[in-house]
Amino acid sequence: MDGLGPNAANSCPVTPLEFLERTATVYGDCPSLVYNRTAFTWSQTLRRCLRLASALSSLGISPGDVVPLQPPPPVSILRSVSLKSHLFCCLSLLRDSILFDPVSVLAPNVPAMYEMHFGVPMSGAVLNTVNLRLDARTISILLRHSASKLVFVDVLSRPLLDDVLRLFPASAERPRVVTIEDPYEDAPPPQSSALTYEKLLETGDPEFRWVRPRSEWDPMVLNYTSGTTSAPKGVVHCHRGLFFITIDSLIDWSVPRRPTYLWTLPMFHANGWSYPWGIAAAGGVNVCLRRFDAAAIYAAIETHRVTHMCGAPVVLNMLANAPDSARRPLHGPVQVLTAGAPPPAAVLHRTEALGFAVSHGYGLTETAGMAVSCAWKGQWDRLPASERARLKARQGVRCLAMTAADVIDGETGESVKRDGNTMGEIVLRGACVMLGYLKDPEATAKAVRADGWFYTGDVGVMHADEYIEIKDRSKDVIISGGENLSSVEVETILYGHPAVNEAAVVARPDEFWGETPCAFVGLKEEASAAPPTKSEVIAWCRERMPHYMVPKTVVFRAELPKTSTGKIQKYVLREMAKEMGSAVRPGRM
Amino acid sequence: MDGLGPNAANSCPVTPLEFLERTATVYGDCPSLVYNRTAFTWSQTLRRCLRLASALSSLGISPGDVVPLQPPPPVSILRSVSLKSHLFCCLSLLRDSILFDPVSVLAPNVPAMYEMHFGVPMSGAVLNTVNLRLDARTISILLRHSASKLVFVDVLSRPLLDDVLRLFPASAERPRVVTIEDPYEDAPPPQSSALTYEKLLETGDPEFRWVRPRSEWDPMVLNYTSGTTSAPKGVVHCHRGLFFITIDSLIDWSVPRRPTYLWTLPMFHANGWSYPWGIAAAGGVNVCLRRFDAAAIYAAIETHRVTHMCGAPVVLNMLANAPDSARRPLHGPVQVLTAGAPPPAAVLHRTEALGFAVSHGYGLTETAGMAVSCAWKGQWDRLPASERARLKARQGVRCLAMTAADVIDGETGESVKRDGNTMGEIVLRGACVMLGYLKDPEATAKAVRADGWFYTGDVGVMHADEYIEIKDRSKDVIISGGENLSSVEVETILYGHPAVNEAAVVARPDEFWGETPCAFVGLKEEASAAPPTKSEVIAWCRERMPHYMVPKTVVFRAELPKTSTGKIQKYVLREMAKEMGSAVRPGRM
Repeated sequence: MDGLGPNAANSCPVTPLEFLERTATVYGDCPSLVYNRTAFTWSQTLRRCLRLASALSSLGISPGDVVPLQPPPPVSILRSVSLKSHLFCCLSLLRDSILFDPVSVLAPNVPAMYEMHFGVPMSGAVLNTVNLRLDARTISILLRHSASKLVFVDVLSRPLLDDVLRLFPASAERPRVVTIEDPYEDAPPPQSSALTYEKLLETGDPEFRWVRPRSEWDPMVLNYTSGTTSAPKGVVHCHRGLFFITIDSLIDWSVPRRPTYLWTLPMFHANGWSYPWGIAAAGGVNVCLRRFDAAAIYAAIETHRVTHMCGAPVVLNMLANAPDSARRPLHGPVQVLTAGAPPPAAVLHRTEALGFAVSHGYGLTETAGMAVSCAWKGQWDRLPASERARLKARQGVRCLAMTAADVIDGETGESVKRDGNTMGEIVLRGACVMLGYLKDPEATAKAVRADGWFYTGDVGVMHADEYIEIKDRSKDVIISGGENLSSVEVETILYGHPAVNEAAVVARPDEFWGETPCAFVGLKEEASAAPPTKSEVIAWCRERMPHYMVPKTVVFRAELPKTSTGKIQKYVLREMAKEMGSAVRPGRM
Repeated sequence: MDGLGPNAANSCPVTPLEFLERTATVYGDCPSLVYNRTAFTWSQTLRRCLRLASALSSLGISPGDVVPLQPPPPVSILRSVSLKSHLFCCLSLLRDSILFDPVSVLAPNVPAMYEMHFGVPMSGAVLNTVNLRLDARTISILLRHSASKLVFVDVLSRPLLDDVLRLFPASAERPRVVTIEDPYEDAPPPQSSALTYEKLLETGDPEFRWVRPRSEWDPMVLNYTSGTTSAPKGVVHCHRGLFFITIDSLIDWSVPRRPTYLWTLPMFHANGWSYPWGIAAAGGVNVCLRRFDAAAIYAAIETHRVTHMCGAPVVLNMLANAPDSARRPLHGPVQVLTAGAPPPAAVLHRTEALGFAVSHGYGLTETAGMAVSCAWKGQWDRLPASERARLKARQGVRCLAMTAADVIDGETGESVKRDGNTMGEIVLRGACVMLGYLKDPEATAKAVRADGWFYTGDVGVMHADEYIEIKDRSKDVIISGGENLSSVEVETILYGHPAVNEAAVVARPDEFWGETPCAFVGLKEEASAAPPTKSEVIAWCRERMPHYMVPKTVVFRAELPKTSTGKIQKYVLREMAKEMGSAVRPGRM
């Protein structure tokens, strides 16, 4: 078998960064990005990204260790085409340290944010997009944890960043700050001496030979988890993982050539589920929006003839519940990909009736995007709407490039019964699983185990047709009188109540039952005339679920606390429930 | 950076074999394959492939070295998530020998042929599909070269295989033979004691845990090159390479979910450009045809509502020149992917006018399928037909998952000028490039060089818009009076002659000029009433090309010799031209 193995021509690292140059060749004159009255073509976008990479290199962000394009070191090492040379290549990687130079960004979906998804890693640095909705204290922790030497900040977030930097200990090294201008916003102009994004680009070379990864396992992005259940952790993904998730997301959603994509999903959330690279791969148009409401979305769809958009169910909600004045007729079907939480049936009905084609998937920051999706079967089209909604709310099957997805028993590690009932932990295996958590080998080892699975921390069931359905986050399972009960199931029934706008159920400590379900409920505006009482809500549940699942406590709230991506922050509610103390005295029920 | 590297959950080998199980989950009840009155669903196809893999394992084809699914060895070794463990994994691969147990198949596009693309590698064996149009002597050389222990043979090819085996030296070990039955063919039934394909499947376990590759670099298929220019060489591809080409071919051709694919391209030609795995990935329908002419293709398109098909330009020719009696109106656009030679303008016009949407790509057995494709730009739609045909005849740009494609100067290794004129060798780099040629490290080293390029042996130019166009195979370049001239350019002009059906131009030795162009020409049937003379053909050329390019010799032939995939065998013509001797005496011109 001599001479048959990785060789100089086939072992070149894969990276989603390669998509940009190809698209600039094929679609160079076509629009790449639109933002207010700003519009770029793909050849302009390529040149701006190369300028950025070049300028960052000049700033010394990616230390002198720049790798020439041709021949790249692993290739020149792989002179003989055999496994031995593969080994040799690995040895060479061990010898050198891994480059890890993060550049952080605090920005909404503006053009610079899109360009950074290429320009920053093209300089050899690691891109760290920061959730803009975090507080200054948390951001200051993240920036110090990542040891970012440079931070790009949107002009409107400059005051936030100033607060962040004030929280740095006196001894801590402060990152260099570059402000991203926005001609469409009424903000104080940056000091004329200050380095701004556009000034920085001017110093860069648009013909820069960008820094290819030495290995496809080289880190490319750092994303802190949104922290629904715990403190943020720094998820690191490599070029290989991001290549796979990007390709897989295009195939899974059947994205055609040249889509028009509306940026309703923040790019700072798991890199917009990989679509910054995906839309470049497809040669599409990125319609950027700094902020949006239902009217802005409908207007953008009409103006730009949007074909695709992503968002948490809260975005679907927005579309479905838009007042008539905000709504506009669609020019054709608009594909909407949703994830983060199962879309409620009522919202699905309404958005689909309006002409949105909703797809539902499931992924985590740790998988860089959609790892599982509810692949739709043609025969389901003939089912009644409620049945279709029930099926579409399931998370689904592994995406094509994933190796495996399963629901396993935490004790035995065996697959749970395919009965749609037996709960277990959802586990995943595939090329898009993270390298690990930054500076946290313990958390990494807990999530990625020697049995070959990434443990998601989500509790689910496997249906007879091998579709996975999430029942809860592990931490959200309520154990009442020894029964495990899924807070999501209770919430689904609460969402069915005509007056309920949003609902979250958490455990409330109980001396007798251990825990009891406690429901936090937000009501619809139109229900304000005759709002339901707590006991009416409880009665609604009692008619529709087993007794042990019925919330013992109902709390009405104008709005529930949410993460930046619209997920309800259960840990906040859990704290509130804890502070209420024991709900029911022993013997009361 | 501790703990950030390949780990147990993300370093699992990728393989296109994984697509089958997913599709059986999602589209289990949907048709997978149709052949005459035989039809299977995807869950049946999965079970048949697993039976095949299981039965092959039982036959000892894949030696006892079966790898359990969970945890696979590289994963259990990768207990610590670091580059060190990646190294460890590589070491373990070095320690063991690579499995390489080829199973050969001689069959047309029948269901068994499709199933073998999964079932054979799922047993851990390497699939070797043999070109059915080769002669017995060549096949006997290939079977001995590959050391196949088992050969599947279509019932109608059994006499050919008997001839092949008679050519084995007495001392040589003969492979086991399994005949593939065909209830639709009038063939002598196999002896009742003989092992047949269906009998073998019956012995297999449809719940077999198939043999996952230990590494994504493990060999999966062995394909002998069609030999347009030299003796066949055994190209070996690994799971990783085939995964990439399959995904890339789906994206590049924008294959939607659930296509209906007509098998006009033989699967024994570079595994049907990866579409056996691709159609499984997309959950489509495979319409199998043992043999076809224009009427059979039009009938199949109508009956099965075919959406996609592949073929060399000769298939396009067939569609375009079909008599009215064979032609049927199309139900909608039919996507046709062509490669192997640029589609002639006249053929493009006619097929597109009939409703076929033609895409053109370029690949080699060594890239397992399409590596470059003529990505179409919207603005080209507005050009006149002749201009569109000229643009579509170009090979194009690298496909998305390829790393690089270029045209370089053979001497300096530098990119040639982007002027559409300067000829150089087309070189490629990407994950789908072969591992190498079986038992031929010298040929491997010549094709895959330390500079990181795979040398295609094709001569081309790079246009200003960075689209590659093939001008010739290196061996087909004619050097006349010191001028390099492209035989393809001369052929293109010959194809423009209204009476010419096919044309090939090769070098004829010449004492004075070194070489002169010699044209072999096949005329259209309708030209038989008043065929052009040789001097009329020469005059046609003289009006349209530089003097030195004009063929000095014209030979009319009823049909030109072709490979199984419809490529004209220039080496046969070159031999004929050589035998003619010097064409023109010094001083005659």
